[in-house]
Amino acid sequence: MILAGGSGTRFWPASRALRPKQVLALGGSELPLIAQTARRIEALCPAERAVVATGRALVEVTQQALPWFAPDAFLAEPVARNTAACIGWASSLIHRRDPEAVIAALPSDHLIADEAAFRGAVEQAFAVAEDGTIVTLGIKPDRPETGYGYIEAGSALSRGVHKVQRFVEKPDRAKAEEYLASGRYFWNSGMFFFRADAMLRAIQKHMPALASGLERIERAAERGAETERRETKQVFEALESVSIDYGIMERVEKLAVIPADIGWSDLGSWHSVWELGGKDARGNAGKALTVFVDGDRNLVEDLRSPGATPRVVALCGVSDLCVVQTDDALLIIPRERAQDVRKIVEELKRRGGPV
Amino acid sequence: MILAGGSGTRFWPASRALRPKQVLALGGSELPLIAQTARRIEALCPAERAVVATGRALVEVTQQALPWFAPDAFLAEPVARNTAACIGWASSLIHRRDPEAVIAALPSDHLIADEAAFRGAVEQAFAVAEDGTIVTLGIKPDRPETGYGYIEAGSALSRGVHKVQRFVEKPDRAKAEEYLASGRYFWNSGMFFFRADAMLRAIQKHMPALASGLERIERAAERGAETERRETKQVFEALESVSIDYGIMERVEKLAVIPADIGWSDLGSWHSVWELGGKDARGNAGKALTVFVDGDRNLVEDLRSPGATPRVVALCGVSDLCVVQTDDALLIIPRERAQDVRKIVEELKRRGGPV
Repeated sequence: MILAGGSGTRFWPASRALRPKQVLALGGSELPLIAQTARRIEALCPAERAVVATGRALVEVTQQALPWFAPDAFLAEPVARNTAACIGWASSLIHRRDPEAVIAALPSDHLIADEAAFRGAVEQAFAVAEDGTIVTLGIKPDRPETGYGYIEAGSALSRGVHKVQRFVEKPDRAKAEEYLASGRYFWNSGMFFFRADAMLRAIQKHMPALASGLERIERAAERGAETERRETKQVFEALESVSIDYGIMERVEKLAVIPADIGWSDLGSWHSVWELGGKDARGNAGKALTVFVDGDRNLVEDLRSPGATPRVVALCGVSDLCVVQTDDALLIIPRERAQDVRKIVEELKRRGGPV
Repeated sequence: MILAGGSGTRFWPASRALRPKQVLALGGSELPLIAQTARRIEALCPAERAVVATGRALVEVTQQALPWFAPDAFLAEPVARNTAACIGWASSLIHRRDPEAVIAALPSDHLIADEAAFRGAVEQAFAVAEDGTIVTLGIKPDRPETGYGYIEAGSALSRGVHKVQRFVEKPDRAKAEEYLASGRYFWNSGMFFFRADAMLRAIQKHMPALASGLERIERAAERGAETERRETKQVFEALESVSIDYGIMERVEKLAVIPADIGWSDLGSWHSVWELGGKDARGNAGKALTVFVDGDRNLVEDLRSPGATPRVVALCGVSDLCVVQTDDALLIIPRERAQDVRKIVEELKRRGGPV
C-alpha cells in the first residue's frame, strides 16, 4: 500500500498542487520518488499486488510516475480525509481481495539509501505482523532532530523487535538530545506493517465511525461499481480527518517497533536535497551548465522540461543558497530557510495567481 | 557620432559578444541604450546627419536597435583599434560630407536622466567648438567615485566653460574625496564636441600615423567603394590601439570643459541598474511576476525573449542580490560584487563553451 495522497508545497516550485513531491525525481535518481518506493519493495511485493492510494486529482500524474502499474492498482480517494481513512479504506479493499493479506503501508515520498537493510527490516516486520501485531519501522536517529515525531521503544519482544511504549510529538531541542542519548527513541517513519484483518479490527475498536463507513462501502460494492463509487464519496465526505498515528497507533495494544538503520530521509525540503545529493569540493551541487565562482555549499536544480533551451546558471559570491528553476518559476532561498518556501506559496495565493 | 564599438561583459548574461550593452534596454526604458542616445540628441542632430561607429560583427544588431537610421549611417570598423582610430576615421568621413561639420561624439551606452540640461550643455558645447576648440562635458561629481577618470578644470573661458587643466586617471578614495571637495574636478564623460577639421588637425599634429592612414583611406575612396573598403581594412590593421583621451585630449591645447549636472550614469554594472531604477518600499526592483519575501534591496531582471513562458521569480530570505535571467542564462550575484561577472565570463571561456 503506497500512500500518495500528499500535495505539499515544501518543494515549490517543483511541487505544485497537481505535481506533488512524490512524482518528482529527487535524491539523485532519474525515477520519481514514488517509483523509487515501488521498486524498493518490488522483490517482496510485486506491482500486481500493490495498491496506490492517492487523491482523485492526482491519479493521472501518479499513474504517469508508475507506468508499469495496472490501472486498478490506483485508489482515488474522493476527498482527502487524512491517513486513518486512507489506510482503513485501502485495507478494506485489500482484505476483500485477500482476507489473509499482510500489508506494508509505505509513504511514497521518502528516500532510503540502504535498500538491503530496508528489505531485511521489512521481511522481519512482515513476520512479526503475521500474528496480528501492527509493526512500525523506527528510524535510528543520528542527530537530535526536532522536525520528526519519535517512538519510544519498550521491552523487547524478540531480537530487534520491541513493544511500542508510546508515540511522542516533535520534541524541543533539549528533549531531542535526551531521546538521542537514551538509545530508546526512534523516528516515526510512517511505515506500518499489519494484517488487513488486524487493521480492520483495530478500526472497529478505536474508530467505529470509520469502521461503519467502510462496511457501508463494502455493502455498496455488492450492488456494483457505480453504487460503490457513490457511497465511497458520501462516506468520505462525512468522515473526520484523523491521522493513523492519532486514531489507531496511539491506541492499539499489539504494537511493535523494529529499529532500523536504513539511510532514511523524509526529504523535507530543498535543504535535504542538497544534504543528501552529490557535491563538489566546495560543497556546491549543480549539473554541467552550472558555474560557481567564489561560493560554497549551494544547490542548483534545473527541473525544466527536457526540451528547454540549455541554460547556464552562474552563481558568483553567494553561499548556502538553493536555486531551483522550472519552466515557469525560479526560486532563490537560503538553505537554512528552505522550509519557508511555504511563505512564497502563501504570497502567490494571496495575489490570486497560479501557485 | 555615436560610438558603439563596445562589447564588454559587465552586463553578462544580458550582454554578449554579439549583443553588447548599448543594444540592451536598460535604465527603465523600453528602448536600447543606443536608441535612447540617438533620441536624446535628435532635436539637435537628426538621424540623417548621424553616424554610428561600430564593429563589423555588431553592425546588424546595432541597426536593429536603430531601425529608423539609414543603412549608410553605420560605419563598420574592420577591426577594433580603440577610440582614437574610431573617432578619427568617422571625423574624416563626416568631413568629406561636410567640411564645416561640428561633431558631437557620444558614447552609446550611458544614461542621462535630465535631458533638458543635457541639451543645454550640448548647445553650449557646439557653440564653443565653433572656433576649433575641442570641448568635453565634465560631469559634476556627487560622490567620491573611484571608478571614473576626472578632468581638472582650469581658468574660466566664458560663463560655464573652463580650460581643461589636465585629465587624471581613476583616483584612490582619498584623492577622490579631495577632488569632490575642491569643486574643480569633473568626471570624464567621454562626450566630446569638435569641428571635424579641428579634430583632423589635432590628429595630424599628435597622431601622425593615424593621420596618414586616414589620408590613405580618403585617397582610396576616390577610386571607388571597394578600394576604400580594402584600404580601410589594411590601415586599421596596421594602427595602434590608442584611446582618444591618451592620443589627443591629453595633448591638444585648445581644450575646454563644460561642467554639467545632467543625471549622468555610465551604467557600469547590474548594481547601477538597481541604483537608478524604480524600487519598492524595501528597495526591491522587479517586475509583476516577482515575489520578494523577507528580503531587501534586490534586483530581478527578466530579459528573456518576449515569447518566453511567464515565469514567477521568488526570492525568500535574501538581500542585496542581482538576479538576471535571459533565455539561456541565469546570473545570481551580490550587488556589491556586480563587477565580478567578468569572473563568470572568464570561467565560461576557460571551459571552452559559449559565453
